[in-house]
Parts: sequence; structure tokens; C-alpha cells
Amino acid sequence: MRTREIISPGNTAVKEAVRLRRKRNRYERRRFLTEGEDLLAAALAGGYIPRQVFVLEGNVSTTMETIGDASDGMDVLEPDVEVCICSQPVMEKLSELGSGSRVIAVFDFIDRQLAAETEGPLIYLAGVGDPGNAGTIIRSASALGGCGVAFSPDAVDPYSFKCQRAAMGAVFRMPIHLDVTSNEMITHATTRGSAIVSSDPHHGLAVWDSSVEESRLLAGDFLLVLGSERKGVPQKLMEASCLRLRIPQLPEAESLNVAMAGTVILYEALRQRQALP
Amino acid sequence: MRTREIISPGNTAVKEAVRLRRKRNRYERRRFLTEGEDLLAAALAGGYIPRQVFVLEGNVSTTMETIGDASDGMDVLEPDVEVCICSQPVMEKLSELGSGSRVIAVFDFIDRQLAAETEGPLIYLAGVGDPGNAGTIIRSASALGGCGVAFSPDAVDPYSFKCQRAAMGAVFRMPIHLDVTSNEMITHATTRGSAIVSSDPHHGLAVWDSSVEESRLLAGDFLLVLGSERKGVPQKLMEASCLRLRIPQLPEAESLNVAMAGTVILYEALRQRQALP
Repeated sequence: MRTREIISPGNTAVKEAVRLRRKRNRYERRRFLTEGEDLLAAALAGGYIPRQVFVLEGNVSTTMETIGDASDGMDVLEPDVEVCICSQPVMEKLSELGSGSRVIAVFDFIDRQLAAETEGPLIYLAGVGDPGNAGTIIRSASALGGCGVAFSPDAVDPYSFKCQRAAMGAVFRMPIHLDVTSNEMITHATTRGSAIVSSDPHHGLAVWDSSVEESRLLAGDFLLVLGSERKGVPQKLMEASCLRLRIPQLPEAESLNVAMAGTVILYEALRQRQALP
Repeated sequence: MRTREIISPGNTAVKEAVRLRRKRNRYERRRFLTEGEDLLAAALAGGYIPRQVFVLEGNVSTTMETIGDASDGMDVLEPDVEVCICSQPVMEKLSELGSGSRVIAVFDFIDRQLAAETEGPLIYLAGVGDPGNAGTIIRSASALGGCGVAFSPDAVDPYSFKCQRAAMGAVFRMPIHLDVTSNEMITHATTRGSAIVSSDPHHGLAVWDSSVEESRLLAGDFLLVLGSERKGVPQKLMEASCLRLRIPQLPEAESLNVAMAGTVILYEALRQRQALP
């Protein structure tokens, strides 16, 4: 760990970090920001070491303790990590939350290639544009046994502040795959031997009825395709699906949002794997 | 319908409406704002007439048509409604979305008293502070057969912009009850003859196992209590509960957020009511 003090919001390192709030700059540098002790601790617990950590002055030891505890005693003070002890104005400049952040960290991108040998449901977000929904799905996938979340090129950026906030650290526990096209997803599912299951609010089979199907696809390593709320699942993936599911709802009701639908299907899959004879 | 034109963002009616963005002012006037055609159409479809409608100039007829269609031909032009045809700067001043809103409406509060003769699960948000989660729960309750959503005095405001955005119009379909204390909730459940069911991520019964219990409480008109993610369900309600439920998750996983947990329980309740023999 190398430490330095930063008092001025005009400092170059601060400006560089602030630039990472914009998607374009994130992808140019292949780095992103996380805000708060919880996310940093989740990252460390997942074995991810930050490049840089900005800590509010007067909070260094308590912050480091909190992080150390949460990351299960892992050594957070690796020699390469630069810890910047910052004034309040600097932290305010860095923060996207607006106020109260005591620690903000810079990480290298953590997305990875799709792998065929994974177990459990893989989720594909085809054009899902809402960062809160995408983050919630990452969190639900982490809780309910998913093996990864893949994003289409036109889906939201999982490194955005809002997505990370909704994912609550799950972004460091759940493998993330970026820029995966429909074709690549279909090829991958075929290679992996996964059934393709799409969410289809209008014409799908009632989710709970999938448990009485002989094949019980949800108990296996399926690919779950979720589309945007406006456009739904792309035609090509719909056609490649061997199962289309809807969450049964009351007539005339507002539909569930995509995060809800995804979570319910993952819950049902876990139920079929764990609770049914 | 009375129409007028407003060109200046400094107009008194605009200032009055902008004040409703603050909770304190909303509760003083007992009025709130909705933004966008979808919400206005949902309100009209639910039989709620706005006090005032601000429409972007040049969009009046298309907006009225969209709303008319979505609200199933209902007459949106009641004599008492004041329609203000506004310049772009006025709409920008009114908008919380930031850009692109073509219609913003002012409504009287729509919350109502708890009623004993309702059917289906009633949801109680005890201290739930996140507007996105609260709104999502309202939406899920509307989709999955809930009969109302009650808010504790320390819970988030359902009339806030973020909560309404997440609820996507369900706030006009689902009865909302405000300022309900734990004691009032327990009394109401007793009067109604509802079982009290609490979400308890750590010690509860696995949700899916509630289907094999002889009593099958979720198939009846239960009260579902959801607590804040930090504090959980208040002690008094936990003690009054005859069933505590957890969503089974993988060990070491991030927990589900409160909206996901609520949605899964409502899904499971609907499954037990509709799909099980």
C-alpha cells in the first residue's frame, strides 16, 4: 500500500477517476468505480484488488477495519494499491451518491469470457436497458444459483453506478459477460448443452407448470433469456427457445418488471432443483 | 376542460406544482404529481381525475389521444380539469425525469383507509425506505393478486416520483394505505381473520415448504409483512406472525432485495391458490 494525501478536487488523479463515471471513458480505460465500504469489501472477498482507493480523511483506520472484517481478514493493503486520503470536497467530487461516501475505489474491468463448463442457470439480458433491473438480476442470480449474467451489446452497462448499486456487490460474485450477441449466445448454449428458456409474458407456459413437464428443463443448466420491457426477447432467440415462460398474473394487471420476472423464474428453478422429488 | 397557455417557468401554477416535488409540500396540500402519458392513462383507467394537466405545446392532441386510448375511451376532458399548454422550458422545470416529458398531472392523494372485507394478500411495508423497492412491490402486488399495500409511518412515501416510476401506474390500481402502525396492522389482521406472515431471511421456513404445510396459509387472505433490508421486520410483528418465510438461497450469496423477496412470496401464494390441488 502506498498512501498519499489529496486536498484539492482539481487533483489529476481525482479528475482521472471522475472521468470513469462516463461509460465511454470506462471502456477506453477498462476501469470502473465502486462506491462505499460494502462494495469494496465484496470485491476483496471475491479476490479483486483495486488499483486505487480514495478514503475520506479521518476515516482511514475505521474504513480499513470495516473492509478488513467484511473481506474476511484478507490483506487489503497489497503493495501495489494506491490509497489516497482525501478531503471532504475531493470525496464529494468523486461521489455519485451525492453525499456520505467514505470510500471509493477504482478497479480494472472484471467481465470474462463465456465458459462452457459452468453449472446452473446462465442469464442473458437481451437489450435490457434499465440499470436498476440489470443490477437486481445480477443480485438475484447470485442469491438463487445463477452461474453468470451475459449482456447483449445494446444492454445497459453493468459497470454503471446505478447497476452496481442495485447489484449490491453481487457484481463481484457473479461472472459477468459483455457484448454477447444473440448468435454467440445460441452457439454457447448449444455447446454447453443448455436448453434455451425465454421469458414471454404473453404466450408462455405458466412458470409453475414447468415443474410438471416431463423434461423439467429448469432443473438443469438452462439459459434464461430476458428481453427489454418494451421490445421483449429478440425473435431469433425466441425461435431458438425450447421453453417460453410467463409469470401467471391477474387479468388487467400491470405486468411484472423484467427483474421480477427473472427472479421468479430463478426461484422456480431453484425450487425444482432442490425441493421437488 | 378549461385550457390556458403557460410560457414562463416563473408562472404561479408552475411554481405551485414544482413545490409538490417535496414530500412536506405534498402532505400539506395532499396532492402529488405524475409524469408521463402512461401514468396519467393508468390513473384515468382507475377512475382518478387529475386536478391539473400540463401538456407540452404542439403535443396536445396526440397526448390526449394516447391518453384517451389507454384509458379505454374514458372522457378525460371533464369540465373541472385545467389543462395547461406549456412551453418546453415550463415542462423542463416541472419534470423530475429531466427531459422528454410531454405530460405532467396533479392529483389529489388517493390513499384510503384499511378495509376488512378485502380478498387476497395484503402487504405491509414496515420501514421499507427505498422508493424503487416500494414501487416495485406495489407493481408486483398488482400483478400477483394483492389487495393493498400499507406503509408504516417510517416507510418511504408512495407519492414520491421514484416510487411511482417503479410502480408504473400500479399505484392507481392497488389500494394504498398510509401511516399504519404495527399495532394497527395487527388489529386489522385480527379483525380480518388474516394470518400474519413475515419475511425472515435468516430463520424462516423455506417459502416452497409452505405449500406442504397442512394449513396452507399462503392460499388464504394473509398479511405479508416486509421489513427494511437493514432492520428487518419489527419485533412486535415478528412475534405476532404465525409463519415466517425465507427465500432459500445459496450459502454465502448476497441476499435478495426486499422487493424480490416480496415478489417471490406473492408468486408462491398465487401458485398455491391457483396451481395446487
